Amino acid sequence: MIHVAVLGYGTVGSGVVEVIESNNEAVSAKAGEEMHVKYILDLRDFPGDPYEDKVVHDFNVILNDPDISVVCEVMGGVGAAYQFTKQCLEAGKSVCTSNKELVAKHGAELLEIAKNKNCSYMFEASVGGGIPIIRPINKALTAEKLETISAILNGTTNYILTKMEKEGADYSETLKKAQELGYAERNPEADVEGHDACRKIAILSSLMVGKNVDSEKIYTEGITKITPADFAYAKAAGMTIKLLATSQASDDGSVMAMVAPALISREHPLAVVNDVFNGVFVTGNMLGDVMFYGRGAGKLPTASAVVSDVIDCARHIGRSSIVCIWDREEAKLVDISETEKVFFVRAEASAKAEVEAAFPGGKYLTAEGRTEDFGYFTAVMKEREFEEKCAALGEKILNRIRVA
Amino acid sequence: MIHVAVLGYGTVGSGVVEVIESNNEAVSAKAGEEMHVKYILDLRDFPGDPYEDKVVHDFNVILNDPDISVVCEVMGGVGAAYQFTKQCLEAGKSVCTSNKELVAKHGAELLEIAKNKNCSYMFEASVGGGIPIIRPINKALTAEKLETISAILNGTTNYILTKMEKEGADYSETLKKAQELGYAERNPEADVEGHDACRKIAILSSLMVGKNVDSEKIYTEGITKITPADFAYAKAAGMTIKLLATSQASDDGSVMAMVAPALISREHPLAVVNDVFNGVFVTGNMLGDVMFYGRGAGKLPTASAVVSDVIDCARHIGRSSIVCIWDREEAKLVDISETEKVFFVRAEASAKAEVEAAFPGGKYLTAEGRTEDFGYFTAVMKEREFEEKCAALGEKILNRIRVA
Repeated sequence: MIHVAVLGYGTVGSGVVEVIESNNEAVSAKAGEEMHVKYILDLRDFPGDPYEDKVVHDFNVILNDPDISVVCEVMGGVGAAYQFTKQCLEAGKSVCTSNKELVAKHGAELLEIAKNKNCSYMFEASVGGGIPIIRPINKALTAEKLETISAILNGTTNYILTKMEKEGADYSETLKKAQELGYAERNPEADVEGHDACRKIAILSSLMVGKNVDSEKIYTEGITKITPADFAYAKAAGMTIKLLATSQASDDGSVMAMVAPALISREHPLAVVNDVFNGVFVTGNMLGDVMFYGRGAGKLPTASAVVSDVIDCARHIGRSSIVCIWDREEAKLVDISETEKVFFVRAEASAKAEVEAAFPGGKYLTAEGRTEDFGYFTAVMKEREFEEKCAALGEKILNRIRVA
Repeated sequence: MIHVAVLGYGTVGSGVVEVIESNNEAVSAKAGEEMHVKYILDLRDFPGDPYEDKVVHDFNVILNDPDISVVCEVMGGVGAAYQFTKQCLEAGKSVCTSNKELVAKHGAELLEIAKNKNCSYMFEASVGGGIPIIRPINKALTAEKLETISAILNGTTNYILTKMEKEGADYSETLKKAQELGYAERNPEADVEGHDACRKIAILSSLMVGKNVDSEKIYTEGITKITPADFAYAKAAGMTIKLLATSQASDDGSVMAMVAPALISREHPLAVVNDVFNGVFVTGNMLGDVMFYGRGAGKLPTASAVVSDVIDCARHIGRSSIVCIWDREEAKLVDISETEKVFFVRAEASAKAEVEAAFPGGKYLTAEGRTEDFGYFTAVMKEREFEEKCAALGEKILNRIRVA
């Protein structure tokens, strides 16, 4: 019998209990042993809840119970969650989590402790919700040198961009709708400013290069400046706009990572990743392109991913099932201002000559019904140079978006 | 040191050797031990080949060498490949394969032998080439009850259909081009008649329900009857045509599986799976929809998948790393003639009244430039009834395609 403890009885926590109980036969068969939730840690009581008798308020009950071999940390945050996770691992109990903030911040350290204590720290649910992405990167693509990752990692912003595109609505109006539908938080900053996607690409990048990629050093730009006018030009160019999290490994071990809106071709597989769905597009040196697609959030998909990790731990009691390499050594992040790309600019109609002079060799773009502004693709140029030119043009530049 | 033997030095076999050697540092790090190819079994000699000294002609050299713990069977076929695989597993040597024909036919038996002998039989490369699909189904989606799989599993037919759609070319002309480019075999039957996709969906279906799904009992229809006219109507309906392999698990353990061309919406994620790419769209009871996308064939992608299995075996020497459930018991296959769906028919312009009488409650479809025929979507109806009506209408029905 595998006894599991769940830390935090919120949305994901109750989902974890539900998955283990609803799919108990399948889950136990896959684990090779019967599996049950023994404790649920939460500060609150849940009178009337079918599992109210499992609720405990003292973490030490779980820590000191030798029956407990696997713990699900689904509390979130980097305070108590970090302390509890560390204590569990040090006691040889495996921890499975959906807490991307903690994984991004302390993943390397927690993995090291787990390996030393012959247990596991697993975080399939921390990126892409229910989409199997961490495990394929670690286990299926082991024969690969991964070269690039381009991903849509945040369902809230993807929902907003999809609606803006399809309905021609503006950003704040669409955000408000998303909040009403529960797709965006009341304080949407972590999503719309790109921080959530940034933590996730930091995790994927760390696994790609085997060293620690510090999420706080990744250039991150949100979607708040995207307008229906930008979508009009994107459409005219056969493209769409997505909040892309990208990461590229160099041969010298350095990483070029960023989170920013980007124009991508309608033909690109990521272009059909719409609404709250996520997509992770990975290129390996042998394999070429692979994409993983699915619901990036939600109670049951995320819980399902946590439980897949619990099953993996259950099959490896007494030894670590960790196969990833994620050292504590910091990976060098490339200064993006020295990287080159094509940029889309939308500028005042009166500024055509100036824009063309600033960005020679580019291409004009017209869109139906747009007269007060125009679109323009620059030639390939350095970020730094582009920024300088934009600064000089000042408010004549209405918006600028990178082209993927 | 992990010593590997490769059975068959053809395209995939030479790819396996190349992946293990080119990515040796990464591969060995992931395996936890240095890994090398000790033998290559082939009837031919390879003078001048960098690995010619590893080539042996006698399988017993491999079977009787206690150093060899992992064998890659990349010979193909169900004759010698079956005998060799069985002998290796019975000797406790793990076998990794890309041989879908053998997996579809004898997978359940070979898995049973491997489990009994504490070794593994692994076949990530047998479906979807380099796309991680077998391992996610077995390991990542373990907390799920999988309900349906819809997939594009054959790159050759997908390439042909993509070209027909984009260039308006007819089937035989496009097949000829595909053969010139090496995307189709000189004898293309296994691909264009759907047999290759059928074997792959049989494997996925077996893993989905945990019982053996006999590929020979799966209804299979190829793409040879698809015409540019069908694409014209598909386009008018906002759809495209794909060779879909589908499988659906019922609560009573039975399976509804088939391979046939189908009209699918342009909005469906499988609609952007173009050219030689494959896509596997899976629905689980907790997770909802997930899709895996990538190159379904090719030397290095396939070899990369074989080597990911070799690494898994290397990490589990002396014990089985098999987690899938695939019993020898036969799964019951649902008679598709009793299933219901919408059908597209293309019929002679003169037969409008008869078509509408035969299929009441349907919807007409017009397409630019088409005058000699018309398109029609039937209401939802049983396959059997549809076939009877079509038979009665005879040659007035020019083509019929299921709607997904």
